[in-house]
Amino acid sequence: MSLLADLLSTLFDRRYVFMGKRDERPLTELCNALMSSQGDVSGAAIAHEILDGYATTDTEGKRAFFEFLNSEMDIDPDQLENVVSSYKTERTEANYRKLVEAAEPKRQELARRLNQVPGATHQLVHMRKDLLGFMKDKPNLARTDVDFRHLFNSWFNRGFLVLRPISWDSPAQILEKIIAYEAVHAIDSWDDLRRRLQPEDRRCFAFFHPSLPDEPLIFVEVALTKGVPSSIQGVLAEERDIVPVDEVDTAVFYSISNCQSGLAGVSFGNSLIKQVVQDLSRELSQLKTFVTLSPLPTFCKWAKEQEIDIPQDDAALKELAAYYLLEGKRRGDMPYDPVARFHLYNGALVHDVHVGADTSENGKKQSAGVMVNYLYDLQKISQNHEVFANKKEIVASKRVQALAKAGVVPASSQPKSDVA
Amino acid sequence: MSLLADLLSTLFDRRYVFMGKRDERPLTELCNALMSSQGDVSGAAIAHEILDGYATTDTEGKRAFFEFLNSEMDIDPDQLENVVSSYKTERTEANYRKLVEAAEPKRQELARRLNQVPGATHQLVHMRKDLLGFMKDKPNLARTDVDFRHLFNSWFNRGFLVLRPISWDSPAQILEKIIAYEAVHAIDSWDDLRRRLQPEDRRCFAFFHPSLPDEPLIFVEVALTKGVPSSIQGVLAEERDIVPVDEVDTAVFYSISNCQSGLAGVSFGNSLIKQVVQDLSRELSQLKTFVTLSPLPTFCKWAKEQEIDIPQDDAALKELAAYYLLEGKRRGDMPYDPVARFHLYNGALVHDVHVGADTSENGKKQSAGVMVNYLYDLQKISQNHEVFANKKEIVASKRVQALAKAGVVPASSQPKSDVA
Amino acid sequence: MSLLADLLSTLFDRRYVFMGKRDERPLTELCNALMSSQGDVSGAAIAHEILDGYATTDTEGKRAFFEFLNSEMDIDPDQLENVVSSYKTERTEANYRKLVEAAEPKRQELARRLNQVPGATHQLVHMRKDLLGFMKDKPNLARTDVDFRHLFNSWFNRGFLVLRPISWDSPAQILEKIIAYEAVHAIDSWDDLRRRLQPEDRRCFAFFHPSLPDEPLIFVEVALTKGVPSSIQGVLAEERDIVPVDEVDTAVFYSISNCQSGLAGVSFGNSLIKQVVQDLSRELSQLKTFVTLSPLPTFCKWAKEQEIDIPQDDAALKELAAYYLLEGKRRGDMPYDPVARFHLYNGALVHDVHVGADTSENGKKQSAGVMVNYLYDLQKISQNHEVFANKKEIVASKRVQALAKAGVVPASSQPKSDVA
Amino acid sequence: MSLLADLLSTLFDRRYVFMGKRDERPLTELCNALMSSQGDVSGAAIAHEILDGYATTDTEGKRAFFEFLNSEMDIDPDQLENVVSSYKTERTEANYRKLVEAAEPKRQELARRLNQVPGATHQLVHMRKDLLGFMKDKPNLARTDVDFRHLFNSWFNRGFLVLRPISWDSPAQILEKIIAYEAVHAIDSWDDLRRRLQPEDRRCFAFFHPSLPDEPLIFVEVALTKGVPSSIQGVLAEERDIVPVDEVDTAVFYSISNCQSGLAGVSFGNSLIKQVVQDLSRELSQLKTFVTLSPLPTFCKWAKEQEIDIPQDDAALKELAAYYLLEGKRRGDMPYDPVARFHLYNGALVHDVHVGADTSENGKKQSAGVMVNYLYDLQKISQNHEVFANKKEIVASKRVQALAKAGVVPASSQPKSDVA
Repeated sequence: MSLLADLLSTLFDRRYVFMGKRDERPLTELCNALMSSQGDVSGAAIAHEILDGYATTDTEGKRAFFEFLNSEMDIDPDQLENVVSSYKTERTEANYRKLVEAAEPKRQELARRLNQVPGATHQLVHMRKDLLGFMKDKPNLARTDVDFRHLFNSWFNRGFLVLRPISWDSPAQILEKIIAYEAVHAIDSWDDLRRRLQPEDRRCFAFFHPSLPDEPLIFVEVALTKGVPSSIQGVLAEERDIVPVDEVDTAVFYSISNCQSGLAGVSFGNSLIKQVVQDLSRELSQLKTFVTLSPLPTFCKWAKEQEIDIPQDDAALKELAAYYLLEGKRRGDMPYDPVARFHLYNGALVHDVHVGADTSENGKKQSAGVMVNYLYDLQKISQNHEVFANKKEIVASKRVQALAKAGVVPASSQPKSDVA
Repeated sequence: MSLLADLLSTLFDRRYVFMGKRDERPLTELCNALMSSQGDVSGAAIAHEILDGYATTDTEGKRAFFEFLNSEMDIDPDQLENVVSSYKTERTEANYRKLVEAAEPKRQELARRLNQVPGATHQLVHMRKDLLGFMKDKPNLARTDVDFRHLFNSWFNRGFLVLRPISWDSPAQILEKIIAYEAVHAIDSWDDLRRRLQPEDRRCFAFFHPSLPDEPLIFVEVALTKGVPSSIQGVLAEERDIVPVDEVDTAVFYSISNCQSGLAGVSFGNSLIKQVVQDLSRELSQLKTFVTLSPLPTFCKWAKEQEIDIPQDDAALKELAAYYLLEGKRRGDMPYDPVARFHLYNGALVHDVHVGADTSENGKKQSAGVMVNYLYDLQKISQNHEVFANKKEIVASKRVQALAKAGVVPASSQPKSDVA
Repeated sequence: MSLLADLLSTLFDRRYVFMGKRDERPLTELCNALMSSQGDVSGAAIAHEILDGYATTDTEGKRAFFEFLNSEMDIDPDQLENVVSSYKTERTEANYRKLVEAAEPKRQELARRLNQVPGATHQLVHMRKDLLGFMKDKPNLARTDVDFRHLFNSWFNRGFLVLRPISWDSPAQILEKIIAYEAVHAIDSWDDLRRRLQPEDRRCFAFFHPSLPDEPLIFVEVALTKGVPSSIQGVLAEERDIVPVDEVDTAVFYSISNCQSGLAGVSFGNSLIKQVVQDLSRELSQLKTFVTLSPLPTFCKWAKEQEIDIPQDDAALKELAAYYLLEGKRRGDMPYDPVARFHLYNGALVHDVHVGADTSENGKKQSAGVMVNYLYDLQKISQNHEVFANKKEIVASKRVQALAKAGVVPASSQPKSDVA
Repeated sequence: MSLLADLLSTLFDRRYVFMGKRDERPLTELCNALMSSQGDVSGAAIAHEILDGYATTDTEGKRAFFEFLNSEMDIDPDQLENVVSSYKTERTEANYRKLVEAAEPKRQELARRLNQVPGATHQLVHMRKDLLGFMKDKPNLARTDVDFRHLFNSWFNRGFLVLRPISWDSPAQILEKIIAYEAVHAIDSWDDLRRRLQPEDRRCFAFFHPSLPDEPLIFVEVALTKGVPSSIQGVLAEERDIVPVDEVDTAVFYSISNCQSGLAGVSFGNSLIKQVVQDLSRELSQLKTFVTLSPLPTFCKWAKEQEIDIPQDDAALKELAAYYLLEGKRRGDMPYDPVARFHLYNGALVHDVHVGADTSENGKKQSAGVMVNYLYDLQKISQNHEVFANKKEIVASKRVQALAKAGVVPASSQPKSDVA
């Protein structure tokens, strides 16, 4: 990855050469100036001022900036109504051009013009992170967020992302971000990180965008094993036997973390695992099985809602967990469990369930110590996905199906509330 | 550059792993399927089919494909009218979301979904090249082109472009494209190319996009000289004295070529020269003057329209050329000369005029052998640009002003027609 | 490869920063000064002067320089005799140190001190090229050459060489050297080069040394084919069908060229083919056969010495060529053919013989149009090599053995002269 | 640096492909076999066996291996005597060749043949590290060490080393070695390392050899400051103000560490600082002063030998330290202080002395808390070096000279013993 960083650092090295005095106008005025500027000569200077000004203004200034984008740089529905009407009458290029122009809020073009400054993409991602915060108090700002997300979906299109391995040979600058962003099983030191990257039976992959070469967007940690592991403790143990790479037969995705909260809702996560499955298959033909080792983050919450006590008995716990995965539902007949929703939508199937698999405090509190393997079978993910997406049917192994059947749940145990 | 190619080759190496039988449905049906697919599982496969199908279909099939995009994947003005009306009444997020969705033609989302396939960006650029061809006969396809251009302006935003030097150390794969794309002073062999790249007083720079790592988008050739040269023959002479780089004081941009006709109208050219000026200034502080050595491609055409004979006398020819540059106008009071329009809009000024400066057949036929230096002074380009963009005023050196004044042109010599 | 060039260019970028006036002393005096300098402070400056001085002196000056190295920087046998005697008496470290010092001619240390200057390695290789030229008239200079070769064998040790693919993506700077150095089947244009590098069934590999990143040391051109080809015309045809890489089963080494005459006698060639066989095997498991397609460069010469007319009949010609390969001998019972000596010593076996296989002027003049396949079987090369190196036995396929047996040669046909 | 590692990893990727059964002969027998092998076919296999065998044998086996090298692979003085005598009589190439051959111990050629195996260079460096250990008990092994050092001086010649910046963007694999090898001011955590690498006023540079791309050979840590700092505490403080790089005027070399104990006595350290001075001068023209901030590691030892009590008074301590640096001598009239010897021999001068400059336990114990700045003035280092190397004269600033003069030391204070 450092290669990419190195090369594309030109994107950042293209430092703005300032020639003149600072432009002291308020942000909103600068935005209007940028929108009316022609060409990139003065535009780049103004864009730079805006980004600098935004970065250094206080919370109130930022909120005001978004209010300005939301109200002053919105679509003008009256104007749009007029051009739509013309277009209805006559579908000419000129009318279409006017329509397209009127149908795009100015804030989109503003963002594109800001982006000409080196490093701006990352700043715009940060900006949206702020916006998401402000939306809690000012839900009407969601209109502006619609446009940010639309723009980011275009810029961070799957076709522009680069999958890169993360290893102990990666730059420290990237690695410290892996430590910071790991959201599932915290990395508590550089030694811990080394244990997850350096051994020949460990891998890590991340998506990068060429304009943020030092910032992973999402990453997945992989253990290569003999057989499917039944607990995260075994995978992460400090003292464990490293499996020679020619003896492994299984790749276990035991942690997947999003890195940029400013990119929330921009979907690239569902490509990651499948891409990694393909790459690993090609590199190591001995790999036959690709599974996750995943938590059930809302299992205990669901049980409480169902007024079911978590069984003390392992066998019964396993059955209940299987039942939860296959039968626990929320709004729209979707699986109650968010991790299940993610992997099933991706085309994985429910492969196995393990109790006592995550004895961490969090693991016990949320998942009652249970973990689940979702299986990625490249031959079947397309079909699994269709069945799930269209019919809400969950594909599961026979073993899990049998467990779920045995998981007796009182008739009253119907979902009482929706959970996002 | 080969570094970039090397690294980002991952973008292309991510080969689509085909798993199943070809999808034989017609292109239009596949497009509808892609629009209704969810997630990237089946989507990528369909996108791949569409791109492959497009590439192998005949001219008629391609035209039909664009007609389909133009009519079937257009904005629905009735629906848009409805949602605009709702949004006027109540500016909620939900209404806004509906509005934004209705206001974007489906073909935009289609292009984004196609782009998830490795290498798709280049294929989409080719697609638009075809589209521009079909538009000559079917001008109504211009609506679809509006959307392609809109998308490409977002994807090829200045912030995503990388400036890379092109040298004799660059991959042959890139260099053969430089030979092919050179549009101003043809490169007639690899030896000719070597003469333009290898000597220490020669440079070349190109913009690249990370998703097309082997394809320069636009490039400029630069000669480093002592003093401003007065002819292209001197610059390109096979037998010439190489100027030691510590003796140069001037950088001459003697050729600038666009490479991708599918990106016509996507503006990044005006950043290139200014970026190169900045980079060269930083590398070689001895450089004091940055000028072009440019043709006057429509000089003879203009003279003919004005019913002026090209003067046989050098002095008079020089004066007429200066007059043409400063006073020869077309629609909208813009300079008649397209190269002048480009550089003046960029913030350059008319610095000097040379006769007998391009004795090539083409140079004599179009420019009467005259060439012009446009001067880039980083301190003044912003101001020059504003004056030109807002008031149509052309900034020129005193020498050129004096020449133009002396350029006696009969009163009848007013533009008679517009030239694009 | 450009990556390597790029990175290691630091070796060359470390430009000598000159601080003071040129040192005008004669080369010999500077050499003495360099030998008595301590540390690298003044040493680097003097080394630089010597290399510059050598490069710009005339032939006479160069010859004088080598005479100086040969006589003045020789081993002093009297001194050596003394220290050997001491060491015989007492094998202490001190005595050993004196012995080692006296046993190494000063010119070796001189070369090491010269090499501290950036780019010096390549200059020293050039120096030896000159030396080899002077040796023709002054054979006594061979003593100095013994030391150059000794030093280069240490510096260009197999362990320091890097095998890199050469492709159409390689820097033009490297590629023009491939054109220049191709010694077997001349490359007549960049188009010809492209045909040998770009198709998916063509490969090229070269050894590089990190200190000469832009200079291939030796390279081999490879054709991937279905079956073993029987003529070079077929391999190099302009209009030929490219074999999809998943259909190939054979790798044909059809040209191998040394690039640096200053490294003559430094053996790294015999590693190249075996390394490439290993690399290709790993990349393309479908490859089952690794053969050369080689000329018989002294076949006609041998026939003439044997007073045998080249047969007009193809069958007889084939038999004679097989006989020549297996039975034609020179000094020390070694094969008469130099290319045979190279490949057999390498552990290859004589696999097949083809007539009308090289219809070029040179091919007909030297080899009577015949070509031979030497087969590299990694499982057997060690054994083949031992048999050949120790017993002078030539391993050949049954087919070639049979042909050779049939190749009737008059009893008088014994080698009359030695050929180097 | 990761670039280098990446690229040259080919050196290591060239994995030995083993084809057959392990060779169980003892190391000494394998060595003899390697010496009599011809070509690289069997040679590489045997070399591999030897390196593997050595790595896995026990201490006794290793000692026996070196004894074998020392006695059995030594120069044969009888044979050498004979060929010297022949060479005295007749200085022919043949006689010279015999002489050179007899004058080189077999163990040198053995090492070169071992080095053909990928990764062997590093293993040979480790081997010498072991040898240096055994020499403590078996001083006669020093003869073998003479040859190792001779070989390494040729292989690690300044011309083959690459200077690379070490930064927070370097691979963790390199950085953990920086932590491990720092020998002057210990790096106690990754956070500490980040503080020394990431701020814009901090730099680090290392020499690498292309065959050990992941192993720094020697590195120097640099602080960019305004003015010359007077204490290491200030330089390394966790909470300190970062100096914007355009305000710095001084580069301070505050730590220099050798990394490979197997390369002891192979001199490249004295090039490092001067190379870094050149590189930094070119990058940051605002830098005017290049100094070290160095300990006086034998100051307290010297004082004790002189029976001088360390003064409690700062002024007197400063004078005594200055006196020690300029007048404290050991064997051969050389400075008593080893760090002084290193920098003075390098051409630096004694610039200033600071008390209370290193309050660490070690700093107080060895240096009485005193530190010294050695100044590198590129214009004068050559001259300083000559004066020091030839006349043992120490160049010092007037201030330090005055301090030293004031440093009254009793007449009895003459060196009583030598210290290596």
